[in-house]
Amino acid sequence: MNKASDFTPISELLAPRSVAVIGASEDLTKFGGRLFKLLVQHGYAGDIYPINRKRESLLGIKTYASIDLTPTPPDMAVMAVPRDAVKEAVLACAKAGTKAAIIITAKFSDAGEEGAALEAEIVEIARAHGMRLIGPNCLGIISPASSLTLCASPALFVDKLPKGRIGMVSQSGALMATIFDRAQTRGVGFSHCFSIGNQADMQLHDFMDFLVDDADTDVICTYIEGVKDAEGFLASARRARAAGKPVLAVKSGRTAFGAAAAFSHTASLAGNYEAFAAACRETGILLLEDTDAMILQATCMSRFALPKRSDVAVITTSGGGGAITADRLSDLGVPMALFSDATVKSLGLLFDGPATSANPIDMGAAKVGGSVAVAEDSIKALLQDDNVGFVLAPITTAPDVRLICESIVNGAESVKSPNGQKPWLIVVQPGQAGDAARAMLRERGITYSDSLDEAIRVVEGYRDYAALKPMDAPERPAGLKVRDTSDLSGALGEDAAKAVLAEYGVPVNRGAVAQTADEAHELATEFDAPFVIKVVSPDIIHKSDVGGVVLNLQTADDVAQAVTDMAAKLSRDLPKAHIAGYLVQEMRCAPLEMFVGANNDAQFGPMVMVGAGGVLIELLKDVAVARAPVSVDHARAMIQGLAVAPLLDGWRGSGPLDVDALAEAVSRVSWMVADLGPRFQELDANPVLVGRKGEGCVAVDARLLMANPDEEGESR
Amino acid sequence: MNKASDFTPISELLAPRSVAVIGASEDLTKFGGRLFKLLVQHGYAGDIYPINRKRESLLGIKTYASIDLTPTPPDMAVMAVPRDAVKEAVLACAKAGTKAAIIITAKFSDAGEEGAALEAEIVEIARAHGMRLIGPNCLGIISPASSLTLCASPALFVDKLPKGRIGMVSQSGALMATIFDRAQTRGVGFSHCFSIGNQADMQLHDFMDFLVDDADTDVICTYIEGVKDAEGFLASARRARAAGKPVLAVKSGRTAFGAAAAFSHTASLAGNYEAFAAACRETGILLLEDTDAMILQATCMSRFALPKRSDVAVITTSGGGGAITADRLSDLGVPMALFSDATVKSLGLLFDGPATSANPIDMGAAKVGGSVAVAEDSIKALLQDDNVGFVLAPITTAPDVRLICESIVNGAESVKSPNGQKPWLIVVQPGQAGDAARAMLRERGITYSDSLDEAIRVVEGYRDYAALKPMDAPERPAGLKVRDTSDLSGALGEDAAKAVLAEYGVPVNRGAVAQTADEAHELATEFDAPFVIKVVSPDIIHKSDVGGVVLNLQTADDVAQAVTDMAAKLSRDLPKAHIAGYLVQEMRCAPLEMFVGANNDAQFGPMVMVGAGGVLIELLKDVAVARAPVSVDHARAMIQGLAVAPLLDGWRGSGPLDVDALAEAVSRVSWMVADLGPRFQELDANPVLVGRKGEGCVAVDARLLMANPDEEGESR
Repeated sequence: MNKASDFTPISELLAPRSVAVIGASEDLTKFGGRLFKLLVQHGYAGDIYPINRKRESLLGIKTYASIDLTPTPPDMAVMAVPRDAVKEAVLACAKAGTKAAIIITAKFSDAGEEGAALEAEIVEIARAHGMRLIGPNCLGIISPASSLTLCASPALFVDKLPKGRIGMVSQSGALMATIFDRAQTRGVGFSHCFSIGNQADMQLHDFMDFLVDDADTDVICTYIEGVKDAEGFLASARRARAAGKPVLAVKSGRTAFGAAAAFSHTASLAGNYEAFAAACRETGILLLEDTDAMILQATCMSRFALPKRSDVAVITTSGGGGAITADRLSDLGVPMALFSDATVKSLGLLFDGPATSANPIDMGAAKVGGSVAVAEDSIKALLQDDNVGFVLAPITTAPDVRLICESIVNGAESVKSPNGQKPWLIVVQPGQAGDAARAMLRERGITYSDSLDEAIRVVEGYRDYAALKPMDAPERPAGLKVRDTSDLSGALGEDAAKAVLAEYGVPVNRGAVAQTADEAHELATEFDAPFVIKVVSPDIIHKSDVGGVVLNLQTADDVAQAVTDMAAKLSRDLPKAHIAGYLVQEMRCAPLEMFVGANNDAQFGPMVMVGAGGVLIELLKDVAVARAPVSVDHARAMIQGLAVAPLLDGWRGSGPLDVDALAEAVSRVSWMVADLGPRFQELDANPVLVGRKGEGCVAVDARLLMANPDEEGESR
Repeated sequence: MNKASDFTPISELLAPRSVAVIGASEDLTKFGGRLFKLLVQHGYAGDIYPINRKRESLLGIKTYASIDLTPTPPDMAVMAVPRDAVKEAVLACAKAGTKAAIIITAKFSDAGEEGAALEAEIVEIARAHGMRLIGPNCLGIISPASSLTLCASPALFVDKLPKGRIGMVSQSGALMATIFDRAQTRGVGFSHCFSIGNQADMQLHDFMDFLVDDADTDVICTYIEGVKDAEGFLASARRARAAGKPVLAVKSGRTAFGAAAAFSHTASLAGNYEAFAAACRETGILLLEDTDAMILQATCMSRFALPKRSDVAVITTSGGGGAITADRLSDLGVPMALFSDATVKSLGLLFDGPATSANPIDMGAAKVGGSVAVAEDSIKALLQDDNVGFVLAPITTAPDVRLICESIVNGAESVKSPNGQKPWLIVVQPGQAGDAARAMLRERGITYSDSLDEAIRVVEGYRDYAALKPMDAPERPAGLKVRDTSDLSGALGEDAAKAVLAEYGVPVNRGAVAQTADEAHELATEFDAPFVIKVVSPDIIHKSDVGGVVLNLQTADDVAQAVTDMAAKLSRDLPKAHIAGYLVQEMRCAPLEMFVGANNDAQFGPMVMVGAGGVLIELLKDVAVARAPVSVDHARAMIQGLAVAPLLDGWRGSGPLDVDALAEAVSRVSWMVADLGPRFQELDANPVLVGRKGEGCVAVDARLLMANPDEEGESR
């Protein structure tokens, strides 16, 4: 087996001296026919070796009966052959010294166990020979920057592939082709597009890594069904962030139906969406839901500088269109810009009265000459205004749509900025009345959209991207030791779970288990009143329902009496229940109940959570999730993003609560679960009572679930 | 002044024997030039009278120097003249006996007080002569069904206007034209489109009423900035519902920025969006946020029967596209259909294994022949499946997109249904690779979309439309008298507000105001313990903050002592506060705090509200709103739609709460505020404590705000 560093890097794979097309033909109804034709058509400069036993030549290019007969070993091979012929073809390529093979053919791990076994065999063959594999079950590569297309999609039946500075990695071949196709009709091109299929060998992050380093790529778009190597993916995302290249992602498999569809498609386990989303937040990936909006977002990001603020100026030909736009942006919480004095002054030359400071600007209300006359000066003023981060120009059906758009473009292009221009976007809303404008915009290479909805998503995307705060790995708190976990196994109850929490510095209320009323009395004398007692029994789940909890006991005598009474009641009502003892605790009260929890994601490892406790937890679904461990600052940011955050800040004059203590507790819990290792499954500290500022917080109930030692690793 | 019935109905206005175009020219850069040209071009069959002093003829049609010189009085006049010439033109038309005039010219009530005064003068002139006005500040009429265009928009510079069965009323002329233009590029047409501008005379509901009765219209689309006549609008919506014609609406002015834009646009006071939305729910109007989606929704509704259920079947060429679609539908809560046995059997002939029951269906996984081979039979099976309410077919870039779409169309069209077909929709996602498919679909008159996002909105729209439950006016509860309001004025405190609530049958906790500790003692002996006392003072707003509330007093002696202590504390801390007394109440506890409130909307009158009380009210913004009065059933439906509804149904085994009592209270409050008349401003019963089922509910605090008698009417 070779090491990763022994394999040829993607940059080299994209410049092959020769490409073998296994299954090449002139039949455009076949994958091999289209792929071969398109490779020839789009100007690949190296040698092409069509592999075909029946023909002497194809499209005037000499064929070879098998891969070992080519004049030189092909650097790259692409195969669209029946599934049962793939293994043999891979072996032949590997033996011939091919550096990489693209396997279009499907029905491997995407089609059950037998296919998965065959896929594993093929990977083994390739690795043994130092050959890389892309796919199987993929649609290949479209690389305008390398003048290399190894893809059979009808999206490529165009005269010339547009080039752009967007790179794409897609787990779905059809979506890669569709996105490419839609983009090019608007004049938007890509540097490189990779369809990665089942990721048998090369994975999502291999291609992301390449695009991070690639000089032709500024923005990276991904369509993801499931992440196979979480660490690789995270590292790749961090490298992109460091390189200043935005990564955008659309992830499917968020819901049960979506996950089922994704699994049957590329054998991708969709994983827990919340964990994926947390990983994206942590590394600064912008998650989107619509591929059309993703491409428009990427186009804007590749052509404009990132804006310094999210405030939007809207300039339009229609008061109604402006009103709709303003409503929708406001609904999404995107701020509408308040113009600077200089802008108001400039607009005052073009408009009357209140219209000089109104946002949206209705160009139809111009003093003289209508929209065409004022568009150029208006957008100039807006792009020069530091209060404006984005200019959105929805243009409705009107006379001279082309002239209006041209004025906007002229105005925008006259504004120079040393660090690149802030983003602006024309939305061409008319039908046929906008066709001339669209043609002009494409010809001038201007980014535009046909859809207000899509444009609004992009504005929202900029806002969300600016709000991402990638987190560095936190520093381990001084003196915090890694706990040995050999004593922890199975479901740990309140007392045992709290003991571990306490070891990690999470405040818990004092308590201990008594066997008798006398022992309970003694414990109570050591603790501070008031007290609570709870029965400890493996047979009793809902303690309150059977009288197994008594609250608000004021004295040690009360505690002893309550234990006596409880024992009597339980032996009467539940004679078969094994009573392991009575937990005596200090009872605590505080203004707010929160919960802190954790689980262990199959792909992204231990995740820590904080949210509203009590009744709110299920009504609000108000939970912040992050990969463990998290720093105290990160924990504080999680808390501040919750819907219940106003309660923590002080509610109707009740004064602020101890957010610092809660953040500290969340961070401590995160270190704890990170240390608990692969056997860790679930932690639930609920409620965690949060006191007023300076009063701290305390976990008054908890449970911990660990896999048994023989199950180690299965939970991951 | 004439009565409404004296005016010519719109049906007649759309069939004028003659039309005068005031300001007609051959200059296509001018409104009058374009409008005249388009009127001639699109086959209007009556006489056209261009009014133009300088020319003998225009486009070969004889001109007239003024409107009184035309051979017959024109039935209809349209004017795009300078604002200062409008009044004279209107007077001339009115005198000539014109039945209706369309005023394109702007800057009337949309441009301040002076414009509003001029608009009022013009309306007066028209009404005095029995002439109707459309506009001003509008873009006229596009009526393919009547072969009449009185509109200057470049949207109409096409050979032939497509006809369809959708009617449109738009407060924005530019949006009307844009919507028309976008729709026609997809082969979607309209019956009649009206741009209504400032609604100086004819209003939104006049045109809605016409479309309800119009034989050429099946679905009504509206773009609304503000409703001038709420009752007329509601009546119109109810008539449409009764006629089985869906009404769709996009409303702008929901937010501060949107409202400002709408106001400066057509002088429309946007009003409170929640009240408008409540009116739509009540009358069965489907509120949407995107005009593109509205048109696609209307197109589907005009071409297909309303589906019996909302479950969606997705059939696609791409596993990835299917996964995204399934995720997005699931996110929105739209159910994915579970196929019937018959469908699974039919699909079993086309697909292997689990794919035969999977939804989405990935046609790429067909046993043989790919998507083209299975599309026809697949959609047939789905359209015949009673478990399926809607079939969505997102088609990605693939070979033979046209053939795939053709197979789908053939399959769908072969399924006959006596009551019309259930809706199905192809989404053509490719760029250029989909152009042939689009052309085929347009040619065959098939509804399609280019945008998955828009198609998903339509599926959601069907679901929401089905969920609308229009409410009849409720019956007044037996024996409930209309209260005389002459004694109610200004801000009424807890005691007075509760008295009114009690008169309307809303349970309130017992209480009365004492002046002294002795009086308080006496009151407490009449009531049931525990007690609460609250200071009554116009000078003290936040009673709790100054020690003006004491809870949980057990005996009459405790009450007397608490009053003594409170009086001492207040005279020490707030010597200048006027103390009007001490409210002694029975203290009540219950599992849940709700609030019931009401206000008086400027357009839609008294509105009743119910929502979560206490801390939840501001965190959840969880409030149901309806026009008062509401029946108990309506109130129950409002409550059941709240986010806190699970708490009322019984939370974690706590047992159900008394929803019936709460619904009864909401209904009673609604009758109360409806009876309080135009001086009613605000009511807040908060909290209303809701007990367990059978225990009732009780309002334990309340305040009521009434305008003073001399302000009558101003609050409306």
